[in-house]
Amino acid sequence: MRKYGVADTTFSRVDMGKEAVNAIMKEDPEAKVIRYTVPGIKDLPAAAKRLIDAGCDGVITLGWVGKTQLDKYSYVAASVGLILVQIMSSKHVMDVTIHEDESSEDRLYEIALDRARKHARNLVRLVRDGPNALTPMAGKGLRQGYGDAGPLD
Amino acid sequence: MRKYGVADTTFSRVDMGKEAVNAIMKEDPEAKVIRYTVPGIKDLPAAAKRLIDAGCDGVITLGWVGKTQLDKYSYVAASVGLILVQIMSSKHVMDVTIHEDESSEDRLYEIALDRARKHARNLVRLVRDGPNALTPMAGKGLRQGYGDAGPLD
Amino acid sequence: MRKYGVADTTFSRVDMGKEAVNAIMKEDPEAKVIRYTVPGIKDLPAAAKRLIDAGCDGVITLGWVGKTQLDKYSYVAASVGLILVQIMSSKHVMDVTIHEDESSEDRLYEIALDRARKHARNLVRLVRDGPNALTPMAGKGLRQGYGDAGPLD
Amino acid sequence: MRKYGVADTTFSRVDMGKEAVNAIMKEDPEAKVIRYTVPGIKDLPAAAKRLIDAGCDGVITLGWVGKTQLDKYSYVAASVGLILVQIMSSKHVMDVTIHEDESSEDRLYEIALDRARKHARNLVRLVRDGPNALTPMAGKGLRQGYGDAGPLD
Amino acid sequence: MRKYGVADTTFSRVDMGKEAVNAIMKEDPEAKVIRYTVPGIKDLPAAAKRLIDAGCDGVITLGWVGKTQLDKYSYVAASVGLILVQIMSSKHVMDVTIHEDESSEDRLYEIALDRARKHARNLVRLVRDGPNALTPMAGKGLRQGYGDAGPLD
Repeated sequence: MRKYGVADTTFSRVDMGKEAVNAIMKEDPEAKVIRYTVPGIKDLPAAAKRLIDAGCDGVITLGWVGKTQLDKYSYVAASVGLILVQIMSSKHVMDVTIHEDESSEDRLYEIALDRARKHARNLVRLVRDGPNALTPMAGKGLRQGYGDAGPLD
Repeated sequence: MRKYGVADTTFSRVDMGKEAVNAIMKEDPEAKVIRYTVPGIKDLPAAAKRLIDAGCDGVITLGWVGKTQLDKYSYVAASVGLILVQIMSSKHVMDVTIHEDESSEDRLYEIALDRARKHARNLVRLVRDGPNALTPMAGKGLRQGYGDAGPLD
Repeated sequence: MRKYGVADTTFSRVDMGKEAVNAIMKEDPEAKVIRYTVPGIKDLPAAAKRLIDAGCDGVITLGWVGKTQLDKYSYVAASVGLILVQIMSSKHVMDVTIHEDESSEDRLYEIALDRARKHARNLVRLVRDGPNALTPMAGKGLRQGYGDAGPLD
Repeated sequence: MRKYGVADTTFSRVDMGKEAVNAIMKEDPEAKVIRYTVPGIKDLPAAAKRLIDAGCDGVITLGWVGKTQLDKYSYVAASVGLILVQIMSSKHVMDVTIHEDESSEDRLYEIALDRARKHARNLVRLVRDGPNALTPMAGKGLRQGYGDAGPLD
Repeated sequence: MRKYGVADTTFSRVDMGKEAVNAIMKEDPEAKVIRYTVPGIKDLPAAAKRLIDAGCDGVITLGWVGKTQLDKYSYVAASVGLILVQIMSSKHVMDVTIHEDESSEDRLYEIALDRARKHARNLVRLVRDGPNALTPMAGKGLRQGYGDAGPLD
């Protein structure tokens, strides 16, 4: 049976973890989902690693990053860490992030849920259906949280 | 018996280490706490690693970062290091940081103590109570050192 | 038999993966090529690692990076990750990237295909022909996506 | 018998290595000190690792960083490397750095020697006296190269 | 017999690899030198790792970095990678870099050759003569590519 990990934070201002759990269960009803909530983004790598240790076939992390330059430095460190967990485990750890300054506050709620949902589906497709599941969309300029940019030609 | 590590610095202008030790002992009276004091943030990864080597189930580090851009580069390096200790050990290493320029000097004392105290409690909850201990607060916009930002909707 | 991996993204606005697959097959018709499509650049390190695990002798990744500073931070993290896969495996993982702001939009399509194609050939030369295959061009100021800068003297 | 490593550079404009060796020998006369001189800061991680491999219980590195942004990027990379040596070895590798632009040139000589000397003593205290040797100074706002900032309250 | 690795790029606008090979052979005539040419700086870590795997006692890499901020991010990633190869192998991997914007174009040719030559000699001294070979020059403010800055006092 497939097992997915969902790691989220109490720093986040939107419950993206719940949205991701629901999207995974809808997309892959037979799978098991384990959730892990930590204070902030710098705690996500440990959560992701522990979810992998617990047998997850793939993990999605849902980070929320503040507006200051200091928050951005933390984002770089956390992202490097999540990528290291990927490499060490040879498993996908999808690092989904909302930056509090990427849009006006009244739009962030919908952006956050859309991004969590779409990337949760992406995770299922990669874990369940393999390396070519997303290939028909390669180069199509897909976006999560916003409308697709679309392909150039 | 649970064992926690607390790593702090002589560079810090507030004794956050003591505050964290006290908060852990209050929250989890049966646990053992080991403290490790180093000069500055770039020494914290070694301290955290050695605390884990000594059997700690989780570690909190209390860093203080100066105002210059050079200090911020050191912060990035130290944060990457602390995240690596997390990943290598599959244990939480909570990287609690005060930036000397994040607020006016007269408020930093209270911010530092509040942040140390709240994250010490978070560490206990993660180590003692597990991955879902903080899930009821997921997406709630919690903050440490400042008032909570609260959830968006 | 030689085996190459090609990892690309659905975020990309040009199908560089297809171009790279074709260039490799043209350059080294006896080889096998495995493609792996992920959502975005931060997922490329896991794809590259899994392609190496699947027996690839070398990998080319085709990333597309947005215009904002936040996208650039993600680029740094992804690049560090891809380099780590190189080091861990002692294999080439060529990190080919298009930055959406490196040129005007109407030129990006050709730049992306040219870069994918040329670096796919570079990968074949390194994997099939070894460390001195590119030495005649050392110091010649070669570019991919643009005209060559040429040597100084 | 305790063994300390001192790594320094020919790029540096002050002989901090000699100062650190002398400070260690004065502080811990029975110990052995091994010195390792490399061209610049990006060579320090290899030197530190080799000093650890040679049996050092702790290492101090003395870096000198130029004024340009390019020098600062090198600083980040070198610092990450030195922290990785710490983590891999579970030993202290104190990354002491002078930035050529942190003060006017006529003050740098004294700053460099003071910083090398004070951190050499810190290293001895950590290696010889253990995790609580510096705890009485925790949160005291100590500085090296400048006067102490002192504690806030 | 000593073995040295020289890794260079086709992106470079000066044949620094050839200069480094010649300088090593002149300085250490009995040694063997292996050259490895890759497209750009992000490919250097794999080359360095493979040269170490092939038995090299030390490696010099000769990178050329473009003028844009994007090039600088790649530089950080590549430098971190080269330092990781150092640490994993406990061998010197000298990361020699020319930034296309560090000087006017008409001076870059001489700067590049001078830097490659001097650091090739430094590599021989470290590999053949050991940790104290450069100690007489410690703190002397040596530079490569430019005149020495000299010591402060």
